[in-house]
Amino acid sequence: MTQIKIGIVGYGNLGRGVEVGLKNHPDMELVGIFSRRDPKDLDTTAPAYLIDDILDFKDKIDVLVLCGGSKTDIPEQGPALAKHFNTVDAYDTHALMPKHFAVMDEAAKANKHVSVIATGWDPGLFSLNRLMQEAILPVGETYTFWGRGLSQGHSDAVRRVPGVKKAAQYTVPDALMIEDIQAGEKVEYDQKNAHVREVYAVLEADADPLVVEKTIVEMPDYFKGYRTSVSFISEEEFEADHQGMGHGGHVIRQGETSDDMISTIEFGLNLESNPEFTAAVNIVYARAAYKLAEAEQYGAKTVFDIPPIYLSPKSRDEIIKNLL
Amino acid sequence: MTQIKIGIVGYGNLGRGVEVGLKNHPDMELVGIFSRRDPKDLDTTAPAYLIDDILDFKDKIDVLVLCGGSKTDIPEQGPALAKHFNTVDAYDTHALMPKHFAVMDEAAKANKHVSVIATGWDPGLFSLNRLMQEAILPVGETYTFWGRGLSQGHSDAVRRVPGVKKAAQYTVPDALMIEDIQAGEKVEYDQKNAHVREVYAVLEADADPLVVEKTIVEMPDYFKGYRTSVSFISEEEFEADHQGMGHGGHVIRQGETSDDMISTIEFGLNLESNPEFTAAVNIVYARAAYKLAEAEQYGAKTVFDIPPIYLSPKSRDEIIKNLL
Repeated sequence: MTQIKIGIVGYGNLGRGVEVGLKNHPDMELVGIFSRRDPKDLDTTAPAYLIDDILDFKDKIDVLVLCGGSKTDIPEQGPALAKHFNTVDAYDTHALMPKHFAVMDEAAKANKHVSVIATGWDPGLFSLNRLMQEAILPVGETYTFWGRGLSQGHSDAVRRVPGVKKAAQYTVPDALMIEDIQAGEKVEYDQKNAHVREVYAVLEADADPLVVEKTIVEMPDYFKGYRTSVSFISEEEFEADHQGMGHGGHVIRQGETSDDMISTIEFGLNLESNPEFTAAVNIVYARAAYKLAEAEQYGAKTVFDIPPIYLSPKSRDEIIKNLL
Repeated sequence: MTQIKIGIVGYGNLGRGVEVGLKNHPDMELVGIFSRRDPKDLDTTAPAYLIDDILDFKDKIDVLVLCGGSKTDIPEQGPALAKHFNTVDAYDTHALMPKHFAVMDEAAKANKHVSVIATGWDPGLFSLNRLMQEAILPVGETYTFWGRGLSQGHSDAVRRVPGVKKAAQYTVPDALMIEDIQAGEKVEYDQKNAHVREVYAVLEADADPLVVEKTIVEMPDYFKGYRTSVSFISEEEFEADHQGMGHGGHVIRQGETSDDMISTIEFGLNLESNPEFTAAVNIVYARAAYKLAEAEQYGAKTVFDIPPIYLSPKSRDEIIKNLL
């Protein structure tokens, strides 16, 4: 079997997720990890190289998985690398998607490459399910619930409160509201009442817990108006119980097929490792990028554009026989 | 707006579901219902015609939705109509899919048409989710649960038991097993222990309930080995409470992204009207058939082959901006 040759750009949690995830896919092979750091400093047994040397691999890699951040890495590296390679990214800045699509499309098309953008789970699988649910049940409402999972932004916000030494903030969906939607009942949904915010914080020695708690729960934008619980815990407990990377969520559509005849469609994820799962999605879209390039379907592509069969290593005959 | 012109072939529950469902889609228009029955006998205000006259509509219809049965109607009508029209069907005989694909592909390709096959929810949306789940989490297990919903075949089997006047059989998934899978726990799944069978029957006046119950629960293939409950009810209660067409189910994949790091992906449906929801899926794949034909992508297509964007009436710019 000819294996699809993969390169990883960036070696944080997501890059490590792609590295470990590729072991589940015998039709794919990791050619190298590319980082700004000295390859000797990366904790990996895979071949590692300086990002500056990546053009030496132009003919040795079928698809690059871009694992840098959405704020500065992807906007810079994406268009530059799409000139020389097929790429997949998990770009997740919702507001700037049209721009990201446009620059990747231009770079990829001009150089006969494929760039699959925004392939994690939100954006990514959640987006795909929102599209399909809304198309099938056009008269209805889509509800998104995130969690239970650690919110990096909210944890950072708590850590900036004077008196807080360490903190983790979990976004927790309202399970009863989810049940009501599934059961076809009407709900009053907004992001604030659909989610609970759980804060676990370690205090500095001289901090006043009442003052800290008040500062957290009244913080505008982040916590005000939300149901927030604050638990102060020991540093030992924090280190033992709050290092996980679990996450998940639900996208649910409740709609009418005819007057008062309700259907619900639901897509849900429960993930012990958010970065490893995001990587798992990137990997199957890397396979799709390879097949799209083989079919000369150049340019930027989204999860909406890709025939699902391209995600699978199996033949169409096998899929029709066993999965349809 | 140019509307997509739709014809419905067959006017049972599914055909009526397409008729009512099209009202939710302003970009589509119902041109006519085609039936073997005299059009005057159909309980509809839509234009209705004899199936024998359908070739008069060759240039007036963009896509035919084939709403006949999978046993004899679709195998006969499908290839014959695919020569003259783009088609969509909800063919559901899993074992004969490769053959159905082949005959529809041949008829459609030779005449430059598109035939989208097997587009309900199982096969259909469940198949699509099985493919995607398995691709993303190749090391793992897929679990399908059906229900709560009426099983036509099992209801028929109960009605054949001497002493039974009327009967309904519901397939009910084991909710606790679903929760265990969602929670990442190992389960012992087979179709028999994952589902409970609930029978509601009306007895003939002279029937012995003990004998009837024993005959039902020991019926090979249908009930033996299953957890089956039998409730004898009055004819009034049967008419009042057991005429619904609800159904649903779940496809869940539990897999490892790395050693012992579990993710679950879940797709679930809860449907007050099984035929109307099946019709709702047929309708969006009819839109896809129209777009595929416009793009000259002729031949038979499955849910695996179709870019999800083709299911939506929205433009790509709008979708990227609002759904990605």
